[in-house]
Amino acid sequence: MLIHDKHYRSIWPNVEGGKTVSVSIVDQTQLPHQFSIAVINHLDEMVHAIKTMQVRGAPLIGASAAYGLALAMLTNTTDTHMHYAIEKLTKSRPTAVNLAWAMTRMREKLMTVNGADRLTLAWQEAANICDEDVELNRNIGIHGLALIQQQAQALKSEKRRINILTHCNAGWLATVDIGTALSPIYTAHDAGIDVHVWVDETRPRNQGASLTAWELGQHGVPHTVICDNAGGHLMQHGEVDMVIVGADRVTATGDVCNKIGTYLKALAAFDNNVPFYVAVPSPTIDWAIRDGVKDIPIELRDADEVAYMHGIGENGKVTTVRIVPKFSPVANPAFDVTPVRLVTGIITEKGVFAPSDLQQ
Amino acid sequence: MLIHDKHYRSIWPNVEGGKTVSVSIVDQTQLPHQFSIAVINHLDEMVHAIKTMQVRGAPLIGASAAYGLALAMLTNTTDTHMHYAIEKLTKSRPTAVNLAWAMTRMREKLMTVNGADRLTLAWQEAANICDEDVELNRNIGIHGLALIQQQAQALKSEKRRINILTHCNAGWLATVDIGTALSPIYTAHDAGIDVHVWVDETRPRNQGASLTAWELGQHGVPHTVICDNAGGHLMQHGEVDMVIVGADRVTATGDVCNKIGTYLKALAAFDNNVPFYVAVPSPTIDWAIRDGVKDIPIELRDADEVAYMHGIGENGKVTTVRIVPKFSPVANPAFDVTPVRLVTGIITEKGVFAPSDLQQ
Repeated sequence: MLIHDKHYRSIWPNVEGGKTVSVSIVDQTQLPHQFSIAVINHLDEMVHAIKTMQVRGAPLIGASAAYGLALAMLTNTTDTHMHYAIEKLTKSRPTAVNLAWAMTRMREKLMTVNGADRLTLAWQEAANICDEDVELNRNIGIHGLALIQQQAQALKSEKRRINILTHCNAGWLATVDIGTALSPIYTAHDAGIDVHVWVDETRPRNQGASLTAWELGQHGVPHTVICDNAGGHLMQHGEVDMVIVGADRVTATGDVCNKIGTYLKALAAFDNNVPFYVAVPSPTIDWAIRDGVKDIPIELRDADEVAYMHGIGENGKVTTVRIVPKFSPVANPAFDVTPVRLVTGIITEKGVFAPSDLQQ
Repeated sequence: MLIHDKHYRSIWPNVEGGKTVSVSIVDQTQLPHQFSIAVINHLDEMVHAIKTMQVRGAPLIGASAAYGLALAMLTNTTDTHMHYAIEKLTKSRPTAVNLAWAMTRMREKLMTVNGADRLTLAWQEAANICDEDVELNRNIGIHGLALIQQQAQALKSEKRRINILTHCNAGWLATVDIGTALSPIYTAHDAGIDVHVWVDETRPRNQGASLTAWELGQHGVPHTVICDNAGGHLMQHGEVDMVIVGADRVTATGDVCNKIGTYLKALAAFDNNVPFYVAVPSPTIDWAIRDGVKDIPIELRDADEVAYMHGIGENGKVTTVRIVPKFSPVANPAFDVTPVRLVTGIITEKGVFAPSDLQQ
């Protein structure tokens, strides 16, 4: 993805004297106000980066954990330390299935070798995970493009832009590059389709207003930020032609676990006959879970994420303000589950599936 | 309503030397961080107070406009000036039906007299509107209490609190006193029922987090602030027993125009068999409109309400931060319409009606 005309991924290894010594990430807690790169040197720093959401988004969390394990191997390549690191990384965020997937994949690979070979393989396998993510996302974009082209065709007589609503950030900042939900949008925009994106602010952490709006802006994609409350109204008035969101986990039956508030948008889309698509790389599908509402544990995050808001102050510095009365309790569930009955289709690197096709 | 053990209404006239000379309001733009009273001396100041939402909430806007007209009569009691003032006040907020209702009522009354009598009558009629509002709200509380008692009865075997979700602020701050949607809640709490309120933050102006949480806290009602995104998830997990919201306008067919995002909560309530009630004084019902989605004009407010957030900074002062990237456009529709099919009942001062009963 281009930033100030330079191509970046959201995570990459740093090589010194022929050896990989650290990992760089885009510190997403500083966006959109500052484009800042953080260098991660140790396992604990990567756990911290995942926990504090300097890196976030299911695919990027998986890639970050893989690199976190490689960093752990830098200091100690024993089985004991490897298992310790895997457990620590796995627990750093409870909801993302990619995290567990990446850790299982790394463990299986690393168990086949020892010592220096294990370290080399860890860096290589983490890089493979990243490259595969980029390739997956590219293919999601190609399959999603076909859906957008269909909509464009249907709107041709109206001679107007296509309006796509998205929630949270499933863009290149949520992945290693390109994005999942935003991949079809970038692909359509680059193909010359007149796409406009309604960007849900996505409280409490505002990943829509701060990350999605920022990266769409960097790429020149027309977009408008709205409050999470506004999407239903826009759909009632024909202002949304399709919804595309990402997901942290999709069950074998097609239930979709994504950022809190996704379910409300899916209800509104269903109520207004707006197609509701979920774009995910296939590792996001958790074949072990069937009932998303009952069986997916929902991360309860810190109340302060709701009670305090970060932004640029009048002095041009990142400033924090409290917006909830001092003595009012706050609850902060971070995800919700959209039942499969509200989902039109799932866009993966392998193609677009009706949710009912997943089980076959 | 008690604040620091003193009873306040949200608006009241100030008398000096036997004459009413000005009107006091609670400046709601300063809450929850500061309880501040503003004195309004002129028509233009009242128009400004309504526009900038120092006073807000449909019933309070009606009362404020009535007092605004009385202030206008202080300087000039001619028909021309009266009609000028009525037009200016009517245009200060486009959505609230109470505003037009209060202006029609005042005009009809004031047209019957002239000069000093017109001024006296203006103050008196504005006071009548306020007193009637308080009486209406008290009765809404009594009728709503019966619904909450039913729910309490149904939950008796579970031995747990009743969870009521509300959106925006339809409390005493939205009215002259007591509130509409919060009136049944205060009444139930005072009657010893174990009520807990989920308070939707209500972006973009955060009237839930800043006003509803604050006034519930002042009265000692247990509550928890949540993001607007969270309500659907809570309903899916049985954490919401009923929803009670206010409304700015209810159509003759029962469509409900209320703060943006209400429609999304109504969809979630319907999807999870949670009863969805709207509490309004009967003047909020607009008998001239039948199709709410098509025929109610929706106020588009300033983009800065979304792009900037106010709160208490680390220095203890009210501070403003920008939360949207500098070059990203923003849209800010302020209300939405909940179709009647999603509404369980309408709580008015006259009783609780099924929406279909309205037309009879």
